[in-house]
Amino acid sequence: MRRLLAMLCATLALAAPAAADDIRATGDLGLIVERATGSLLLIDQSEHAAIARIEGLGDLSHASLVYSPDERFAYVFGRDGGLTKVDLVTQTIAARVLQAGNSIGGAISDDGRLVAVSNYEPGGVRVFDADTLEMVADIPTGSKTIGLVDAPGRRFVFSLWDAGETWIADLSEGEPKITRIAGIGTRPYDALVTGDGRTYIAGLFGEDGLTALDLWADPPAPRRILAGYGRGETPLPVYKMPHLEGWALAGEQFVLPAVGRHELLWVDRRDLTELGRTPTHGQPVFAMARPDGRQVWVNFAHPLNDTVQVIDTQSRKVIRELKPGPAVLHMEFTPRGHEVWVSVRDADKVVIYDTFTFEVLGEVPARSPSGIFFTARAHRTGL
Amino acid sequence: MRRLLAMLCATLALAAPAAADDIRATGDLGLIVERATGSLLLIDQSEHAAIARIEGLGDLSHASLVYSPDERFAYVFGRDGGLTKVDLVTQTIAARVLQAGNSIGGAISDDGRLVAVSNYEPGGVRVFDADTLEMVADIPTGSKTIGLVDAPGRRFVFSLWDAGETWIADLSEGEPKITRIAGIGTRPYDALVTGDGRTYIAGLFGEDGLTALDLWADPPAPRRILAGYGRGETPLPVYKMPHLEGWALAGEQFVLPAVGRHELLWVDRRDLTELGRTPTHGQPVFAMARPDGRQVWVNFAHPLNDTVQVIDTQSRKVIRELKPGPAVLHMEFTPRGHEVWVSVRDADKVVIYDTFTFEVLGEVPARSPSGIFFTARAHRTGL
Repeated sequence: MRRLLAMLCATLALAAPAAADDIRATGDLGLIVERATGSLLLIDQSEHAAIARIEGLGDLSHASLVYSPDERFAYVFGRDGGLTKVDLVTQTIAARVLQAGNSIGGAISDDGRLVAVSNYEPGGVRVFDADTLEMVADIPTGSKTIGLVDAPGRRFVFSLWDAGETWIADLSEGEPKITRIAGIGTRPYDALVTGDGRTYIAGLFGEDGLTALDLWADPPAPRRILAGYGRGETPLPVYKMPHLEGWALAGEQFVLPAVGRHELLWVDRRDLTELGRTPTHGQPVFAMARPDGRQVWVNFAHPLNDTVQVIDTQSRKVIRELKPGPAVLHMEFTPRGHEVWVSVRDADKVVIYDTFTFEVLGEVPARSPSGIFFTARAHRTGL
Repeated sequence: MRRLLAMLCATLALAAPAAADDIRATGDLGLIVERATGSLLLIDQSEHAAIARIEGLGDLSHASLVYSPDERFAYVFGRDGGLTKVDLVTQTIAARVLQAGNSIGGAISDDGRLVAVSNYEPGGVRVFDADTLEMVADIPTGSKTIGLVDAPGRRFVFSLWDAGETWIADLSEGEPKITRIAGIGTRPYDALVTGDGRTYIAGLFGEDGLTALDLWADPPAPRRILAGYGRGETPLPVYKMPHLEGWALAGEQFVLPAVGRHELLWVDRRDLTELGRTPTHGQPVFAMARPDGRQVWVNFAHPLNDTVQVIDTQSRKVIRELKPGPAVLHMEFTPRGHEVWVSVRDADKVVIYDTFTFEVLGEVPARSPSGIFFTARAHRTGL
């Protein structure tokens, strides 16, 4: 009897990793990419604290991730072709596949059923069942494939570096139905979709300017925008091509890091024409709008990457300059914007700011942190 | 020893309502108000199913609720002055206070620390600690108080039915700092704030038109808009004043249920002028935009409330008419818009539609369902 009770106790103890005191809802969690060690730090936004480290994710340089609709699972896209499903509740790796030799980003369908990965080698997009990570569709493109985003209606949109095309893969009826759009431009290198899933914008490495597609048009027609984007009178060396995910919608305008210049560009939301420029501390990498659109926070390329500037979107002027520390790589706002979390790689920490007072609210130690991703992204298109 | 083990087992068993198999992340949960029975139905959006019923919430007519940032707790505002904190994980009532005699709606601060309730009797707003439901601020207004919303920076905004004023309560430094704005108009009866927290719009019962406030201005100045709103050439009896929460932002335009007329109004997002009207089946109650802004779904006042119309926001034309059943009271989109859940009170069910194919994907039995609230609202301003 005693032995039975002891066994029962042991069983109960094992079966209960989440006892009442440990219950943790998932709405305010997040993951920080620790690129040097191939690990993820699980953070609790309300507690200003790390709660677990998950290891064994392979090469996490340029890693990004998306979340399942229930905010329980993260799908992590490694540079080495690894696709890893991480369980935030049990704090373990739920599944992992090496799905290609060299990949760059991914997306999750609007219904949360499909995860797609964009590959350089072999070039194309592969689509996986979000539950099992079994491959359900293989879409070879014969080109390095970049700028993969999700769009409403179980669609994925991506671009072909070599062919200068954008493809729309509609998976609403099982087999992918592909729409190919030619004439996107020379060497699209990255892309974004607006939060409503309507406008897809590809950055061009081989041309001065970008290309916009209205995904509501049938078929969408490429339209060149911002032809002067990044040219300028006295070109500077480009230390880093800006991430197009750094486009921020701030009220009626987009804010865009200029290529190779110490400037932000302000672009009209309706017609995508330029409205003005703001001089900045260095070459901007990310220009992120606070969710209410009233401020934009900007970080910079090496060697000026110890600084963050805060810009008021009404006056388009710098209202605050902060020095979080060496190598500021990424910033993530809490979903309603009262805080921003800033990763400072070479200080091995993430610094939390109050976005109204600019006060430091806390710091979380992390190993060479880069991207920060809160679970609220699960509910957004194109993130 | 045996007794000790037995006690330990009992403790473990009680302490483990959420064993490994029961783990449930909170990102895709929701609550349906069952007004007639004072209960809430907890639903899992991914499973198309109800998973629990929580009872004992008092008078839930016109009830609404908000969520904590971690999507674990709901704060339910009953008509009888009851403020109930519901735990979605343990599926129990965590706390409940009767904070006034007659109340109408509430809000949660951007940092999730404060919950505010708007009261008719005694007239004013009371603010509670979100953890304990202890009252932390009492703001008497000497008037029935309506249209309470949250705004960025730990602020709450609300209007005074009797005095025709709007007040902004800033709780960022503890004690509320109040800004009073006079001249809002005669008998404000409801209000909304835009998703960016910038524009507050109050509906007027005693005047034809609405009043807008730019909360970024210091101080905000009232501006009358849509003076013809609801007048029309041949006024119809008004069966129900439309909820202003039914304002939908669809791309560059707002969609607004006309008062007392079988029409929707289209309003320019930038300058709040009228762009056009669409004739509808009945007097619209809610006009809800799919999150991508491409469709608007509309339900109607008694006696035409068995119907839902779907309107294309590009052509502003009705593209589909559905008959979910008797007394369609509310609609809620999944956060990325692939489904809409529709409560059909007199058929005791909630019907789930695919918003692309209009196919019925499932039904969930519910007792006289009214409002449907998914946890993704936790991450939005003004919801």
